[in-house]
Amino acid sequence: MKKFNTSPISGMQELLPDMQVVFNRLKDKIATTFYRHGFQNIETPTIERTAVLLAKAGGDTEKQIYKVMKTAETGSGAEQALRFDHTVPLSRYVVEHLNDLTFPFRVSQIGRNFRGERTQKGRFREFYQCDIDVIGWGELPIFYDAEVISTLVSALKQLPLPNQFYVRISNRKLLNGLLAELNLETHSTAILGIIDHAEKVSASVTLSALQSLGIGEVDIDKVVNFMNLSGSRQEIIPQLRDLGFTNVDYQTGLDELDQVLAMVEAAHPDQLIFADMKIVRGLDYYTGTVFETNVKDCGWLGSICSGGRYDDLASNYTDSHLPGVGGSIGLTRLFDALRDCGAVHASEIKPVDICLIPLDKTCYDQAISLAAKLRREGKSVDLVLTNKKLGDKIKYASKIAQSMAVLGEDEIKAKTYKLRDLKTGAEQIEHF
Amino acid sequence: MKKFNTSPISGMQELLPDMQVVFNRLKDKIATTFYRHGFQNIETPTIERTAVLLAKAGGDTEKQIYKVMKTAETGSGAEQALRFDHTVPLSRYVVEHLNDLTFPFRVSQIGRNFRGERTQKGRFREFYQCDIDVIGWGELPIFYDAEVISTLVSALKQLPLPNQFYVRISNRKLLNGLLAELNLETHSTAILGIIDHAEKVSASVTLSALQSLGIGEVDIDKVVNFMNLSGSRQEIIPQLRDLGFTNVDYQTGLDELDQVLAMVEAAHPDQLIFADMKIVRGLDYYTGTVFETNVKDCGWLGSICSGGRYDDLASNYTDSHLPGVGGSIGLTRLFDALRDCGAVHASEIKPVDICLIPLDKTCYDQAISLAAKLRREGKSVDLVLTNKKLGDKIKYASKIAQSMAVLGEDEIKAKTYKLRDLKTGAEQIEHF
Repeated sequence: MKKFNTSPISGMQELLPDMQVVFNRLKDKIATTFYRHGFQNIETPTIERTAVLLAKAGGDTEKQIYKVMKTAETGSGAEQALRFDHTVPLSRYVVEHLNDLTFPFRVSQIGRNFRGERTQKGRFREFYQCDIDVIGWGELPIFYDAEVISTLVSALKQLPLPNQFYVRISNRKLLNGLLAELNLETHSTAILGIIDHAEKVSASVTLSALQSLGIGEVDIDKVVNFMNLSGSRQEIIPQLRDLGFTNVDYQTGLDELDQVLAMVEAAHPDQLIFADMKIVRGLDYYTGTVFETNVKDCGWLGSICSGGRYDDLASNYTDSHLPGVGGSIGLTRLFDALRDCGAVHASEIKPVDICLIPLDKTCYDQAISLAAKLRREGKSVDLVLTNKKLGDKIKYASKIAQSMAVLGEDEIKAKTYKLRDLKTGAEQIEHF
Repeated sequence: MKKFNTSPISGMQELLPDMQVVFNRLKDKIATTFYRHGFQNIETPTIERTAVLLAKAGGDTEKQIYKVMKTAETGSGAEQALRFDHTVPLSRYVVEHLNDLTFPFRVSQIGRNFRGERTQKGRFREFYQCDIDVIGWGELPIFYDAEVISTLVSALKQLPLPNQFYVRISNRKLLNGLLAELNLETHSTAILGIIDHAEKVSASVTLSALQSLGIGEVDIDKVVNFMNLSGSRQEIIPQLRDLGFTNVDYQTGLDELDQVLAMVEAAHPDQLIFADMKIVRGLDYYTGTVFETNVKDCGWLGSICSGGRYDDLASNYTDSHLPGVGGSIGLTRLFDALRDCGAVHASEIKPVDICLIPLDKTCYDQAISLAAKLRREGKSVDLVLTNKKLGDKIKYASKIAQSMAVLGEDEIKAKTYKLRDLKTGAEQIEHF
């Protein structure tokens, strides 16, 4: 009988071993993809000085941060907190180790981050994020934006998604250019918010939100017309050009978007890659390319992978100009959603390859040597050493192993044993 | 120029990418060994309710715990803290998921734990521990103690230790039996502490500590004689038997120790396995087998792997009797020490297999396709897309990659390219 509340804290994912295997495999696939694309793995501490974490952040982030303190602490010393993403610690890391890194620095981070959010379905307080970033020193060509997106697409292709996924890409410079051309820069934060929100509400709600800013109808039409553009590179780039905006921001954004789309398409000709002007990535620190990824007919899943270009992330920590581009897969949330919709389920593959069941203690030495031999060959081997009846041991084996062998005096004398497949019942003679 | 303190918080290990590769490889080797020995991996949340963490602990642990709180929190709700080891969360996990697990439950955990210790060389506030445990339901035969130790020995054999290592094993029941026989049970905590401390002080300090308890000289001789026993199974088991203590605890401890030593020796005939009565593992929750592991002539390293048998770990959470045996490798501390003594160093193996350098933008498409092909073959490939001079790009490649290829118009026409080994300079013709 339980005497204590032993449930994990709400908002923290805790898996049974058979699900943990599946989770670990997905995580490994992502890690391998990042590695093959030349990204170097690093790990930063879980705990940072609060001042580092909040140097740029604020608002919701500050409210969601987990502060940490030692019980015995007297209150002196710098305040500390749990990291809420990988990007802020990365910028600290890059500045700290500037002279020891090779630029452009292709870096991957796979680990747990923390946000004290109100718990609800699909929101986690502790969650794995799988990030890649490329950080330049001084400059970083637009082609790296495509490399980051292509790498993430390669990683997502490894995952058992319930349907095809599509990547939607935009460039913040286009919107900035448009707003400059229409002299709407004073409204830029508000308009950014309205566009970011547009997919969650009806067109008329978006329209009234724009009208409430006191902008003229002609300009509203131009903004709405712009934000509704979405489609393939071949369709959208000419349309964006035909809008006739001529300022440098807009033209640069157009060129960059064109190049990013072209390169990602070249790397993934079989993949759905769109331009979509509704993608702005909220009020985040992005300055150029922005992207989101969705699964077809799974609106409930939300964006499963997103990111973009940030041109001055480490400016709070250093005078060096360190432009970067990065993206992230929110693995904990994604895994939870995949499990809910049946796209991942406890593996049919049992965690253990072979259960060895010595009949009695006189057989233990031989069983131990055989286990050692099979393990050297790379097999996962469980030795069953309980005092239970043989029937119970076989029941145990069939729960956790692919195959089993009972080792008694006869087997040891003959130096052979029967390896039984626990699914098919097929038996095979093997040598000690 | 730095404008901010960007060093990691003291007591937190932060590695450069070339060292991170080495660390990750050691961690993977340990994980693979655990897997091959039939241990199922789980991960529990980093944050637990403080009441769960402190249900059994106290003293130093309570002082070292990191409390966590959300900034916006009003003070209501249960107190939360960062886990300080894997054992306490494991006992919560086992009780919570009792009906979904198969017993004996062989479980591995590899992750970061937290203690707000005073920072000093070799002490970390955030550290990786690699744990295995076997949890029985109702009973758990002594043979699993040997399985746990054998598995940890197999894992340690994978690590680049500066010298041979040796395992020292004892059993707390021996000491308990001895103290019962001598009617010294009221002093048992004090004597335990003195023996635990004996290796750090001279024999005379240990003697006066025992004398200060007011025990008779004859009994002190017996305790000192007992605690000084150490050696191989063949040497020590007869000596322990000859001491002539007859109570059940002592006899059980003797049998258990004999069986554990025999099984670990059988699994690792090439390994130094000792009995050593000075091993008690402090005031921890161990009730039977206890063990520590040291590296020869590296006293400064301390114990690199330790653990033991605990017979009622989850008794605070449940009425079910869940005996267990486990052990742990403190990887962060060990890695730091191995680095200090030169046993591990930044890998000669560069993080990237191949750097592809397209000569100009007209070659990007072909370079991207080639990168995709090589990555599908399992290679780690970096595409160099900077605007720098060719010389700078080659310099970049030679810092991070094993080999490189420059791709220009000629190569693309000929559909071949030269793959240059960046160490030897040797060139090889490859096809697109």
